[in-house]
Amino acid sequence: MAAPKIVLILSGANLNLLGQREPEIYGTMTLDDHLNVARATAKDVGLTIEHVQANDSAQLVEAIHAARGRVAGIVINPGAFTHYAWSLHDALAAFDGPVVEAHLSQPLARESWRHTSVIAPVAAGTISGFGAATYALAVTAMAALLSR
Amino acid sequence: MAAPKIVLILSGANLNLLGQREPEIYGTMTLDDHLNVARATAKDVGLTIEHVQANDSAQLVEAIHAARGRVAGIVINPGAFTHYAWSLHDALAAFDGPVVEAHLSQPLARESWRHTSVIAPVAAGTISGFGAATYALAVTAMAALLSR
Amino acid sequence: MAAPKIVLILSGANLNLLGQREPEIYGTMTLDDHLNVARATAKDVGLTIEHVQANDSAQLVEAIHAARGRVAGIVINPGAFTHYAWSLHDALAAFDGPVVEAHLSQPLARESWRHTSVIAPVAAGTISGFGAATYALAVTAMAALLSR
Amino acid sequence: MAAPKIVLILSGANLNLLGQREPEIYGTMTLDDHLNVARATAKDVGLTIEHVQANDSAQLVEAIHAARGRVAGIVINPGAFTHYAWSLHDALAAFDGPVVEAHLSQPLARESWRHTSVIAPVAAGTISGFGAATYALAVTAMAALLSR
Amino acid sequence: MAAPKIVLILSGANLNLLGQREPEIYGTMTLDDHLNVARATAKDVGLTIEHVQANDSAQLVEAIHAARGRVAGIVINPGAFTHYAWSLHDALAAFDGPVVEAHLSQPLARESWRHTSVIAPVAAGTISGFGAATYALAVTAMAALLSR
Amino acid sequence: MAAPKIVLILSGANLNLLGQREPEIYGTMTLDDHLNVARATAKDVGLTIEHVQANDSAQLVEAIHAARGRVAGIVINPGAFTHYAWSLHDALAAFDGPVVEAHLSQPLARESWRHTSVIAPVAAGTISGFGAATYALAVTAMAALLSR
Amino acid sequence: MAAPKIVLILSGANLNLLGQREPEIYGTMTLDDHLNVARATAKDVGLTIEHVQANDSAQLVEAIHAARGRVAGIVINPGAFTHYAWSLHDALAAFDGPVVEAHLSQPLARESWRHTSVIAPVAAGTISGFGAATYALAVTAMAALLSR
Amino acid sequence: MAAPKIVLILSGANLNLLGQREPEIYGTMTLDDHLNVARATAKDVGLTIEHVQANDSAQLVEAIHAARGRVAGIVINPGAFTHYAWSLHDALAAFDGPVVEAHLSQPLARESWRHTSVIAPVAAGTISGFGAATYALAVTAMAALLSR
Amino acid sequence: MAAPKIVLILSGANLNLLGQREPEIYGTMTLDDHLNVARATAKDVGLTIEHVQANDSAQLVEAIHAARGRVAGIVINPGAFTHYAWSLHDALAAFDGPVVEAHLSQPLARESWRHTSVIAPVAAGTISGFGAATYALAVTAMAALLSR
Amino acid sequence: MAAPKIVLILSGANLNLLGQREPEIYGTMTLDDHLNVARATAKDVGLTIEHVQANDSAQLVEAIHAARGRVAGIVINPGAFTHYAWSLHDALAAFDGPVVEAHLSQPLARESWRHTSVIAPVAAGTISGFGAATYALAVTAMAALLSR
Amino acid sequence: MAAPKIVLILSGANLNLLGQREPEIYGTMTLDDHLNVARATAKDVGLTIEHVQANDSAQLVEAIHAARGRVAGIVINPGAFTHYAWSLHDALAAFDGPVVEAHLSQPLARESWRHTSVIAPVAAGTISGFGAATYALAVTAMAALLSR
Amino acid sequence: MAAPKIVLILSGANLNLLGQREPEIYGTMTLDDHLNVARATAKDVGLTIEHVQANDSAQLVEAIHAARGRVAGIVINPGAFTHYAWSLHDALAAFDGPVVEAHLSQPLARESWRHTSVIAPVAAGTISGFGAATYALAVTAMAALLSR
Repeated sequence: MAAPKIVLILSGANLNLLGQREPEIYGTMTLDDHLNVARATAKDVGLTIEHVQANDSAQLVEAIHAARGRVAGIVINPGAFTHYAWSLHDALAAFDGPVVEAHLSQPLARESWRHTSVIAPVAAGTISGFGAATYALAVTAMAALLSR
Repeated sequence: MAAPKIVLILSGANLNLLGQREPEIYGTMTLDDHLNVARATAKDVGLTIEHVQANDSAQLVEAIHAARGRVAGIVINPGAFTHYAWSLHDALAAFDGPVVEAHLSQPLARESWRHTSVIAPVAAGTISGFGAATYALAVTAMAALLSR
Repeated sequence: MAAPKIVLILSGANLNLLGQREPEIYGTMTLDDHLNVARATAKDVGLTIEHVQANDSAQLVEAIHAARGRVAGIVINPGAFTHYAWSLHDALAAFDGPVVEAHLSQPLARESWRHTSVIAPVAAGTISGFGAATYALAVTAMAALLSR
Repeated sequence: MAAPKIVLILSGANLNLLGQREPEIYGTMTLDDHLNVARATAKDVGLTIEHVQANDSAQLVEAIHAARGRVAGIVINPGAFTHYAWSLHDALAAFDGPVVEAHLSQPLARESWRHTSVIAPVAAGTISGFGAATYALAVTAMAALLSR
Repeated sequence: MAAPKIVLILSGANLNLLGQREPEIYGTMTLDDHLNVARATAKDVGLTIEHVQANDSAQLVEAIHAARGRVAGIVINPGAFTHYAWSLHDALAAFDGPVVEAHLSQPLARESWRHTSVIAPVAAGTISGFGAATYALAVTAMAALLSR
Repeated sequence: MAAPKIVLILSGANLNLLGQREPEIYGTMTLDDHLNVARATAKDVGLTIEHVQANDSAQLVEAIHAARGRVAGIVINPGAFTHYAWSLHDALAAFDGPVVEAHLSQPLARESWRHTSVIAPVAAGTISGFGAATYALAVTAMAALLSR
Repeated sequence: MAAPKIVLILSGANLNLLGQREPEIYGTMTLDDHLNVARATAKDVGLTIEHVQANDSAQLVEAIHAARGRVAGIVINPGAFTHYAWSLHDALAAFDGPVVEAHLSQPLARESWRHTSVIAPVAAGTISGFGAATYALAVTAMAALLSR
Repeated sequence: MAAPKIVLILSGANLNLLGQREPEIYGTMTLDDHLNVARATAKDVGLTIEHVQANDSAQLVEAIHAARGRVAGIVINPGAFTHYAWSLHDALAAFDGPVVEAHLSQPLARESWRHTSVIAPVAAGTISGFGAATYALAVTAMAALLSR
Repeated sequence: MAAPKIVLILSGANLNLLGQREPEIYGTMTLDDHLNVARATAKDVGLTIEHVQANDSAQLVEAIHAARGRVAGIVINPGAFTHYAWSLHDALAAFDGPVVEAHLSQPLARESWRHTSVIAPVAAGTISGFGAATYALAVTAMAALLSR
Repeated sequence: MAAPKIVLILSGANLNLLGQREPEIYGTMTLDDHLNVARATAKDVGLTIEHVQANDSAQLVEAIHAARGRVAGIVINPGAFTHYAWSLHDALAAFDGPVVEAHLSQPLARESWRHTSVIAPVAAGTISGFGAATYALAVTAMAALLSR
Repeated sequence: MAAPKIVLILSGANLNLLGQREPEIYGTMTLDDHLNVARATAKDVGLTIEHVQANDSAQLVEAIHAARGRVAGIVINPGAFTHYAWSLHDALAAFDGPVVEAHLSQPLARESWRHTSVIAPVAAGTISGFGAATYALAVTAMAALLSR
Repeated sequence: MAAPKIVLILSGANLNLLGQREPEIYGTMTLDDHLNVARATAKDVGLTIEHVQANDSAQLVEAIHAARGRVAGIVINPGAFTHYAWSLHDALAAFDGPVVEAHLSQPLARESWRHTSVIAPVAAGTISGFGAATYALAVTAMAALLSR
């Protein structure tokens, strides 16, 4: 039996504070809580999860490099990197599997500088605004992309 | 036993052509195919689906009015209305349940006029770019919003 | 004795919800309440009122066409059509009497997309922000324009 | 019996020339003519009028300061100050009663630099384009605001 | 002998008023006059004309849908829809024959909001500014496109 | 019998390369081929053609000067001059007959810098995107303008 | 013999400092020096000069009002008022004689905010950048305008 | 012993209302309270304070003129003049000592029109957002600038 | 006795049509009439005039090159070149004497594309809007610049 | 006796070069010199200083995270991060104490890309342009904020 | 032995002045000096140089036309044409060999209007800012492009 | 004999993937291949190469700091950092030798966000688009800058 495909979840700057930081926007679940949801969903759809959180975009870039040829797809919640870190764009453009962009909140309903995404042009799809359900939706979406 | 909550799916202009129109962008599934997916998902999560497709934004506005107080949530794939039909914005702002914005393709990776959404400010969340999986994801997302 | 001149009041998208929709912005009077105010004012100044509400801009366009040569002036509260429906602009440009643009709220103090009006270039004057008093003011203003 | 509430009418730069200046735009009534209309209207609705015209925005700012706690509402026709004199904005923001912005002509149908108003964000409502009827409408509107 | 190919002429908002509306801009010919010109030209070049005028963009969208696979080409004078109705863009993008955009006046020499066209990106060509000759030119142009 | 009216056709920079240059955009006809089409059309409608091609906008300016009072109308395909050569605008503004702007391709569907035209404000009408049929349409359009 | 026509010279904010303020930009002549030049030139061309300097735009507005019907033309060096004081624009628009805008320095070669002028739209002509010669040129230019 | 250097504090439009005006933004201290703080700080650092408050930018311009050669430095809280009164910019540019720009609130965190400053280009430094501490900080900063 | 200094007058595109072209804007004097005025003025101030008119900016560029080291100053009325011909900017930047920019009309009061000048950054001063008096003023201004 | 409150000073990219880097802009004091000033000031006002300098925004983000609940306030001189590093914005938004933004130079008087700050929206106040005095002022300002 | 491939060097407006014009920006080498460098480099890499300098963009356009099918590659230093002469863009787009854009100075570090290039979209590569070494680098770069 | 001067080559984010990443844009050479070319060229011109590649802009900033006073010049291919990493700008501004900006592809012919460079204002020159030849050209260019 083939090993389950790996999905790499990337979490950008400040996401290690989830549950503590502005809970009225980001909710009370910690990042670990979200990852547990992701892992449970992954198990249901026959995928396995790896995860990297970094406040440094270079670590995410390098995680993407290391994922090439080994990981089936990437789910990325870039946090504030969404709005300026073109190095992530270029790293994802060099990745050969599908990319899902995910946001716990709805950036388009917040400050105007959150309305642009340097990730969207290289993402197959985007999921935003669903809080506690975000990671389950993102993993489900990834499973759909991988089964095409 | 309580009746299942109703989710209203709204499909905007030209979506009746799904399956025939630019399949390299929108895929080969018809709108009925998508609705069958939505209904199957809804059944799994204890929801029931109603659907209105219209090439006329006024019919969508009136469907939203009629949904007030009767429908639990709205999933809307506005098609081209996404980019200019502020009447839909105001109608959805007057709706009391959650709204999910859904797109089969990834508007942020297409022409620049598709990068703005008049719906996003009144949507709890957005799902875009997942093609055949879009409606299942949207209904699942709605279930999560309704269970909060 | 000559019949009183007719003033056509046009109400755009979502205005049928007045009294129920976002009362903190639009107040608690229904559209019928507003029309009763308009009719009372009209009676005082020797005018008679006709009214069309539509969520479809085409119905407003056609009401304007039908008003040509028969109606003395038009009071229009375009709702969200204010901000994009250039077909209304062109229809009003083809109308030979004065046009009064009216808004219950003050668009210039709300979201930036409400700061532009496609109606203003063809309106003799604008009245905005006076809530329950709006229609009485608009009809009074129309009477003044018609008596020039 | 209580004294009638006071409404302060403020007239900005160049309005002392009314009747002489560009009558095809501003009409042939003098400022005194307009004030007489305003006073007659005020009498009908149980208000009393005070008036300050100034070509100097500082005099208007100080008239607004002096009105605090003594005057019930302010009707302001700022003339050219509309488009740049943020000091008036801040003075009006510090005034505790309602503010009505009034223009004899329709700024939105004139040069593009007349399309912005520094007054609108602090005005409860705006009346523009009704020429000879403007001040009567503005006082009526103020009466409505004061009776809420 | 094969039946002549069908060309669908679509006329947008307010074009039913042609001949009456702003004749200094749009001329004195009625829409029927223009269609008679178009039919005469079509006969000369072996085409046959169908026509839909609508003040409602949805009717045009649906006429375009109905034309798929049956009509050889579409000539569209969108009126004010030119400047905002992206639903027409998407409908025409889903049509498989050539599209000719036509305007009686020269939009680029009028107000700045008439300088953009949501139709042009999906039109093979554009004809504007030739008044009474517009429809003859458009049908001739269509004949050329169909004979390639 | 009066001599036929003269129409001056002006061809801007690089049009001497027609048939060789980017044929997937501009087609395989040479400039002479296009002029033969124009001459044949002109003959049918009782006009006679003169032609100047120049890669130097000054030669076009001077051809326009020389045409004043002698030539009935000008058809201009300005090539790249369309987008910046205001000297052509001023020369055409000083010409007393009608001007037709013509483009073989559809500039509005190409790079954004091709979306502006310095010629359009002084052209009675524009024809673009019809390739091999462009000059016949332009001459026909000119005949219509001259017969008004 | 008729009295010489009067030309009113208006000097805006900070011009009382001429000769002391940033002499590398504005030169070493005082405002009186400049006025003496203006008066000498005026004498040569049969005009007489009046002068008002003010750091307060309202005083200039009122000087313009007082000039109506009495003064033949106005030369204005508005200083920093050039870039925002629309009240001066409106006052000058209400003046019936010619207006000459004058600047000692060349605003278009300085900071970008000095590139716009609220005076230019109501000035017959502009003279800028000629330092010590500016007022003589402006008075000569005014004489030419008055002799038309 | 040398007399202490003089620092001129300038307060712009509406600042005479401090303590009464929007205390949630500007605090409850009056302008006199702020000046007392400034004077106490000045005493500590061997400076003496003069103060001018004006709702009229011309009075501030003239106070700046009068300060030339007599006053060591200027602390200016321009209020709303910050955003448009270029006459203040030019007056300060002609002052030979250091200029400190001070704001009680944080303009960059408020409405977008408060994000630009016409004073900043001629100010050695800026202090904003420190409420009750603002004037003490500004005087201390001035002392540092003067001791260089 | 030294020979009089030479002033080179440059006239741009379409100026050879002066007197015939849009006389309501540019007046009825021919270019020769203007040059005669210039020569008469030059004689009065001890200068001598040379003149080049060209519809080709390259001829003006080369005339500027040839003027280096031989001509004392340049007066240029660039016509439409004002708004785009940066080659003229660079040629004038390489000229060592003063440059006067002159326009018969007032570009800042006309179409918005006439509001920018590529010449202004390299011109000592600008004169615009004085019609028949323009060249005399420009030569006088040049004399002043040369006598510094 | 309570321990003194801790103020965390954060220094962004390239600030380790202070004293060596562009001293005409940033002065000759090293970062240690500035910190000594800060510490001396802190001692006077009963605060204690911690300091982190990083050329990596992630280290600053993590220093901010570590400061939560332990540090009373943050003074940040972000260097070039000021203009793009939204990750710092989000980290500071998650910090519960006051934030002071400090710059040695005056960014608003330098290149235009230095005119925007991603820090300002989450800073209580800003101090810029005071060179050697900056850190003393910033610590004093922080003391004031902490004593509210 | 095959004849060496030809590289055409094109020099735009004002480059004939090299060595005399603004040497602090463009250096002291004449155009001939630069060409000698280019020829020496070309000899080393087995290429031969032709050269055209023109102040007239039309001559460059025609030199490009003449180069089609005969010249292997084009090195162009367009001078001021870089920023507006779209006719050069189109001519180069019709050339079948590689194009190298070269500038002696660094346009991106000069005035903002020098930051755009109409040549860059059709150039394989760009070299700018290397003064005396520019042409040697450009010829070397061309050799590399031709050897691919 | 003096040791050869050192040139530091800096490679930004994702350049470690060269040869694997989007070879149709960046070619098939690895970064080591490029460095070997650079070293061979350096040897020819008497320079020696050091190299740092980093996905983290802070490492590049610190490499620049360490190069001060030791390295003669810097060649930087910033990758995606080109478009936002102002910290690199400031670090390079503090470096005392020449800087060469290099890109393998031609950014100006790609997505619009690649058209801006935060590096260009501090680079003596730029080389872009020459693929395999880029590093040889950049080192040659550096040698020329160092020999001035």
